[in-house]
Amino acid sequence: MPTIKKLLIANRGEIALRIMRTAREMGIQTVAIYSEADRTALHVRYADESVCVGPAPSSESYLRTDMIIDVCKRLNVDAIHPGYGFLSENANFSRAVREAGLIFVGPSPESIEIMGSKLAAKAAVANYNIPMVPGTPSAITDRAEAKRISATIGYPILIKASAGGGGKGMRVVENEADFDEQMDRAVSEAISAFGDGSVFIEKYVTSPRHVEIQVLGDQHGTIIHLFERECSIQRRHQKVVEEAPSSILTPEIRDAMGRAAVDVARACGYYGAGTVEFIVNDDLDFYFLEMNTRLQVEHPVTEQITGVDLVRQMIYIAEGKPLTIKQDDLKIKGHAMEVRVYAEDPANNFLPDVGTLDTYVRPQGNGVRVDDGFEQGMAIPIYYDPMIAKLITYGDTREEAIQKMIRAIDEYQISGVQTTLPFCRFVMEHDAFRSGQFDTGFVSKYFTPDDLIPPPNTTEEQLAVVLAAWLLDNNKPKQSGTNVSIKAKGSKWKTNRLQ
Amino acid sequence: MPTIKKLLIANRGEIALRIMRTAREMGIQTVAIYSEADRTALHVRYADESVCVGPAPSSESYLRTDMIIDVCKRLNVDAIHPGYGFLSENANFSRAVREAGLIFVGPSPESIEIMGSKLAAKAAVANYNIPMVPGTPSAITDRAEAKRISATIGYPILIKASAGGGGKGMRVVENEADFDEQMDRAVSEAISAFGDGSVFIEKYVTSPRHVEIQVLGDQHGTIIHLFERECSIQRRHQKVVEEAPSSILTPEIRDAMGRAAVDVARACGYYGAGTVEFIVNDDLDFYFLEMNTRLQVEHPVTEQITGVDLVRQMIYIAEGKPLTIKQDDLKIKGHAMEVRVYAEDPANNFLPDVGTLDTYVRPQGNGVRVDDGFEQGMAIPIYYDPMIAKLITYGDTREEAIQKMIRAIDEYQISGVQTTLPFCRFVMEHDAFRSGQFDTGFVSKYFTPDDLIPPPNTTEEQLAVVLAAWLLDNNKPKQSGTNVSIKAKGSKWKTNRLQ
Repeated sequence: MPTIKKLLIANRGEIALRIMRTAREMGIQTVAIYSEADRTALHVRYADESVCVGPAPSSESYLRTDMIIDVCKRLNVDAIHPGYGFLSENANFSRAVREAGLIFVGPSPESIEIMGSKLAAKAAVANYNIPMVPGTPSAITDRAEAKRISATIGYPILIKASAGGGGKGMRVVENEADFDEQMDRAVSEAISAFGDGSVFIEKYVTSPRHVEIQVLGDQHGTIIHLFERECSIQRRHQKVVEEAPSSILTPEIRDAMGRAAVDVARACGYYGAGTVEFIVNDDLDFYFLEMNTRLQVEHPVTEQITGVDLVRQMIYIAEGKPLTIKQDDLKIKGHAMEVRVYAEDPANNFLPDVGTLDTYVRPQGNGVRVDDGFEQGMAIPIYYDPMIAKLITYGDTREEAIQKMIRAIDEYQISGVQTTLPFCRFVMEHDAFRSGQFDTGFVSKYFTPDDLIPPPNTTEEQLAVVLAAWLLDNNKPKQSGTNVSIKAKGSKWKTNRLQ
Repeated sequence: MPTIKKLLIANRGEIALRIMRTAREMGIQTVAIYSEADRTALHVRYADESVCVGPAPSSESYLRTDMIIDVCKRLNVDAIHPGYGFLSENANFSRAVREAGLIFVGPSPESIEIMGSKLAAKAAVANYNIPMVPGTPSAITDRAEAKRISATIGYPILIKASAGGGGKGMRVVENEADFDEQMDRAVSEAISAFGDGSVFIEKYVTSPRHVEIQVLGDQHGTIIHLFERECSIQRRHQKVVEEAPSSILTPEIRDAMGRAAVDVARACGYYGAGTVEFIVNDDLDFYFLEMNTRLQVEHPVTEQITGVDLVRQMIYIAEGKPLTIKQDDLKIKGHAMEVRVYAEDPANNFLPDVGTLDTYVRPQGNGVRVDDGFEQGMAIPIYYDPMIAKLITYGDTREEAIQKMIRAIDEYQISGVQTTLPFCRFVMEHDAFRSGQFDTGFVSKYFTPDDLIPPPNTTEEQLAVVLAAWLLDNNKPKQSGTNVSIKAKGSKWKTNRLQ
């Protein structure tokens, strides 16, 4: 059985650091790759060795299979972890890595290929009695036929790109009159995003919730699931708040979804860590959506409630070790929340707001985990996903996890860019979220930018008092990153400090 | 039943922040007190309101009962949490708080008084069949009688200050010839530390382990325990590494110790969070040592393995709520480690090494918790305990918790003062600790300063390469807090960045 001694992480940012931390705990040497835009990034400093693989655009650096494999050969790397995004679900990359004699920390190219095509995935699971949303069995070529099927299924229907993901090439059609226009848009989006205009049609589930199941499979045919993650709070069809467990599943539904997810994984001969996505309606009927053949952004909430380090398990599996975790031993303990801290302006339709992190102070304490790739003073590169951090909280109950999240959001100090934190705080305080009664329409149903209130951090006045004391005491220059005028308060210190 | 709306924390540093975080999660307003030396401390900024109560020496600020109660009246505070140290085990303070119409988040003055005197504690538990180390039933007045008892018990014996704690006034006597000299020293230390020279004698347990049980009692007579903490790794008779659970207890012994701890608490009518300390010998015989009637420094390891927020429970109990946690529902999940990061020089007999935190970057990631009260650039005041932080790790197994601790220690960047981190790393890597076969003699048995090796952080060379790139890119001045010369490397960047 091979033992991984040196691991290259073909990724950047928080997920590169996340993976390196576990590798270091396991005594595995780490190699970072980076683009010219990332030369001062934390993952570059954290790794035992770091190599620049090209200019900022991903196609010239993080997506350069040839450069990455070349680095592995030069530095005697024996395995590659792709993280998420970039090359993580690229079957050709996975194949090239293996052909170079290296270990790919992930599934086989065949599994990636099957689940990378929605239609191949549907075909693969056909024998497993997996609940599927009613829809076309194959990609649409005949528009008249497509309209007939839509009428049979009943509007509203959804047009989805066959090669899609992240909401691109996806269109809801409310009635037949809108069909042609939405179809044209879906196809054109799909071509521009994926170079593949094939689409299919399915029933649009109203009030849907997005619930996904984490699975782990080894190379010896054992597959287990690690319960669900609830990911219904989305903006622009992308997740922004996740939690585990879901507040609506019953133990029976959880068990049924878990078994269905294991079957989906089995249907494509899966090994490694993967995620089977479902939509769940008001009656708790669940339908298989797709399988993501990689580590998921929101994997930490599963780690918190199970105690399982998913990256560690991925490495064991890649080494060929049999799973030592038994399905029956797994229990849900406590409740975990995650919010994604994006450099986006929630008051301006969540548009990216790149810039420099003039202030960047993370929250701390019991039950708070921050997975990030930044520190104060760093700029957020315009070339990549503008996620600054994932803020995860863990408590004995859902209510405690929410309370911790609000506290942690209030404690997070970020200036220089707008972030999704005020929006996430709005979610945490909202009755619909608090009660567990919400779906993927949460943002459009409840959110307007007027709802945003600034978090009750230390007020400028409080800060001024403290700063003034410090200045009087130390006669030092003003610290960078603070925009507080201290003059007026400085001379009043003697009276203020006893306030 | 009273509800606490505004809580004053009569403490400083990490524990003040720890308590405020939970209070904030519970929607309770917080009030900090601080000395003039602490005016820029983090706990002052974190609180909703902060009040200076006097000059740096504790007797003129943090121990000023009158000032603290006066602040409560002026700011409409309805409860006080004392933290640990300072006034936390002062029955007169607890009494004065109640007499002022305020809620004391802690036990009754009577419980504090009983457990504050080792002899009163022994008397209180006499009816409960608690295993005790053989020794004198009362304080020693007659030295000849003391010698006779020592001979009966058998040397080595231990002389302990009746009012003691933290190793002060404690002396091991190996044989009768040394008795008088050690007795003189013990009495004189006890008088200078506690103003009380009474001592007692007990059998000295060789190869002892220090194992303590966390208890929670409500005001309605329900008392539960939350398992043990292993605290045998000590320097200068003070804990520096703690973990939960202990690696040596069997489920039966754990259960017996838990029941004994609940009995000790019952014997003094205890409510609140408390800790019952035991020593355990090689045969797993356990003996009651003392009860600490407060929140313990090392409480986080218990929080990690049980999911219970001890501060939250303390607040509920103080409000008069009945405990909702049932003994039978509590299960140990995973393993937690804590190391105390003191500004001390382990290479120089652990002498305090105060100064300024020129660099201070905390470790992060899955299963890592840092409870601290400092940030980069802050000075460590000479007036108080030189603890910078508690670094806590949590894993599915003891081995994972240790691996995470080593990783986290290596990730911790502190410059400006010497710390106990290299020593704690030595402990984590040591075979005796790794195997679980160790006792309170660990330091004297195994440790010499030559064992310290610098943690394998980013090398100066690696850092120089990164800094040079950043400088070339940005033409910015050198960041403060870095002692790296970048000149030699800077001009070589073009070749280095592709290395």
